Amino acid sequence: MGASDVNDQMLRFELSEYKMRLEKARGAMEHAGIDLLVVTDPANMGWLTGYDGCSYYVPQCVVVTKDKDPLWFGRRMDANGCRRTAYIGEDRIKWYGDEYVQSDTLHAMSALAQIIVDEGHGSATIGVEKDSACLSARSFEVLSGSLPNARFKNADRLVNWQRLVKSPREIEYMRGAGKIVEAMYQRVGEVLRPGIKQSDVIAELTYVGTRGVDVYWGDYPACVPNLGAGADASAPHLTWTDRSIRANESIFFELAGVHKRYHCPLSRTYYLGKPSQQILDAEKAVLDGMQAGLEKAMAGNLCEDIAKAYSGMLARYGFEKTSRSGYPIGMGYPPAWGENSASFREGDKTELRA
Amino acid sequence: MGASDVNDQMLRFELSEYKMRLEKARGAMEHAGIDLLVVTDPANMGWLTGYDGCSYYVPQCVVVTKDKDPLWFGRRMDANGCRRTAYIGEDRIKWYGDEYVQSDTLHAMSALAQIIVDEGHGSATIGVEKDSACLSARSFEVLSGSLPNARFKNADRLVNWQRLVKSPREIEYMRGAGKIVEAMYQRVGEVLRPGIKQSDVIAELTYVGTRGVDVYWGDYPACVPNLGAGADASAPHLTWTDRSIRANESIFFELAGVHKRYHCPLSRTYYLGKPSQQILDAEKAVLDGMQAGLEKAMAGNLCEDIAKAYSGMLARYGFEKTSRSGYPIGMGYPPAWGENSASFREGDKTELRA
Repeated sequence: MGASDVNDQMLRFELSEYKMRLEKARGAMEHAGIDLLVVTDPANMGWLTGYDGCSYYVPQCVVVTKDKDPLWFGRRMDANGCRRTAYIGEDRIKWYGDEYVQSDTLHAMSALAQIIVDEGHGSATIGVEKDSACLSARSFEVLSGSLPNARFKNADRLVNWQRLVKSPREIEYMRGAGKIVEAMYQRVGEVLRPGIKQSDVIAELTYVGTRGVDVYWGDYPACVPNLGAGADASAPHLTWTDRSIRANESIFFELAGVHKRYHCPLSRTYYLGKPSQQILDAEKAVLDGMQAGLEKAMAGNLCEDIAKAYSGMLARYGFEKTSRSGYPIGMGYPPAWGENSASFREGDKTELRA
Repeated sequence: MGASDVNDQMLRFELSEYKMRLEKARGAMEHAGIDLLVVTDPANMGWLTGYDGCSYYVPQCVVVTKDKDPLWFGRRMDANGCRRTAYIGEDRIKWYGDEYVQSDTLHAMSALAQIIVDEGHGSATIGVEKDSACLSARSFEVLSGSLPNARFKNADRLVNWQRLVKSPREIEYMRGAGKIVEAMYQRVGEVLRPGIKQSDVIAELTYVGTRGVDVYWGDYPACVPNLGAGADASAPHLTWTDRSIRANESIFFELAGVHKRYHCPLSRTYYLGKPSQQILDAEKAVLDGMQAGLEKAMAGNLCEDIAKAYSGMLARYGFEKTSRSGYPIGMGYPPAWGENSASFREGDKTELRA
């Protein structure tokens, strides 16, 4: 990790922080009995090395071993993006040519396998993120088929768990993202009127979210704004159309402010008019539920304590929520901003830490 | 496909068009010797059934067999999204509970396997999109492990190839998307000045792109706007920061207008000032190359004819482009808008059709 290899001006964290992250990942690898880790989750790749680019639709990864610097592997045209955003030195940037892209006969993972053999890890115990959106069934088939002497272990969430406790700089970025999402909802409040098109509301809040607040410029969210109105509010992952906002129906938003890939999501429901008593009851249940959950949000408690407090309060009002009541956030790339480690749900015994 | 099952008002195409698409897919399945197809690519899912929602970060699919209506399988909370957007009847909507999400012990694909067995396909030849971003290595491992009597075939791009020739309605949506991307670049031309922040330029063009043009409201792009300025223009998949636009450097954009999930991408490079002769030469080479390529764009020619005409013209000016010169577009979801079938590159003998 020589200073001469480093593109300092683009890095979003001190080199020492990347170094610490690497050591945390290596510690987890050792604990799991993994010699070499193939990191395909784009947020894990970025967290470990700084690499940032919307190139995750082709095979790419960061390879972590016990001693050498992390290796970036990706498409030839994206190697420049690695040079511009990551601290990885030229000798650790490896690429495949465009003839591997969308080919029925060539697969990038066979090129990666050759690199792994060349570096002397052909018989290693290799960890792969098997349920990562960016490790396809075919990628794993080719990688494992090309390394007959290697042993493979599932390393899902191994790096994700290391990301759970945030550094001061990460918290600063997330607070910036929080300011952004507040500004986005302020704009929603200004423009949301019966008759305005959903797409025009989204245009307004995206404009504010991308400009950002103060020094916190707006980055793109890992998941686009969700909006459901009326019966569509029953479906959590619908996006907008040009239908007009109407009075006397629920209008649901799930938005995130984002700064330097760090997210602060916030959901809100609007109702233009006088809501029914049932909706008012649901509002009170959710507000009291959140309060009950927040009261349990202290170091030493368990994740499930928050879920129980929240769903217990909902139950008092006669409501049931069968899905999780929360999950960790931070760095994220499409298709989702969830950090994929702990969950606020019954049975999750993860201890909360400062 | 009874009329009573159908949520007509939300469908973006006539039922007859979905029916025709289904028959095209079934024809391709028969040709490939596949009894049951598990469609995980979100664009393929949407093209076949209308299903639309940003829920592709959890396991979900459309199952196509020879005789029964397509089956939607996904997370419980997303079943409502299926009811609101797809033509699939209630009896063909199957879901898994939230306890399967991000679990170390349960996997949604085991629930899908049980459904496949219950429907009498436990010994079928099953096609899966092995290199789809939405079929993880783990998903395939669990699915195939839970169906020991089934035979699996790789069905990558099987549905994608059926999408290549567009219907009149699809072309209408794409023309709408084209109007949108034109408007986005018009706004870029209005605001791009030395000193403006990259993030503010993106906010402006996203605002225009989301509002849309006339009846063509703007949907979200499968890939966020790419912007590279100065040395960053060498990296094709970087996104924006708050750095100021400067005079006398290349500024590269790759944007798409989008309407109802249909894309029209367009790349442009700006230069505020007097470009060097080398840049002017490159511009002329690209313009002449595109003209040469377009002259070959006629039914009966092959995809590689366009690539050869384009790269041949570049070579005359002393430039080399090692990556593809084009690919099909249409419906798309993150992480990319490419349709993943033919390519404009040497060796691709796909015949161009009207």
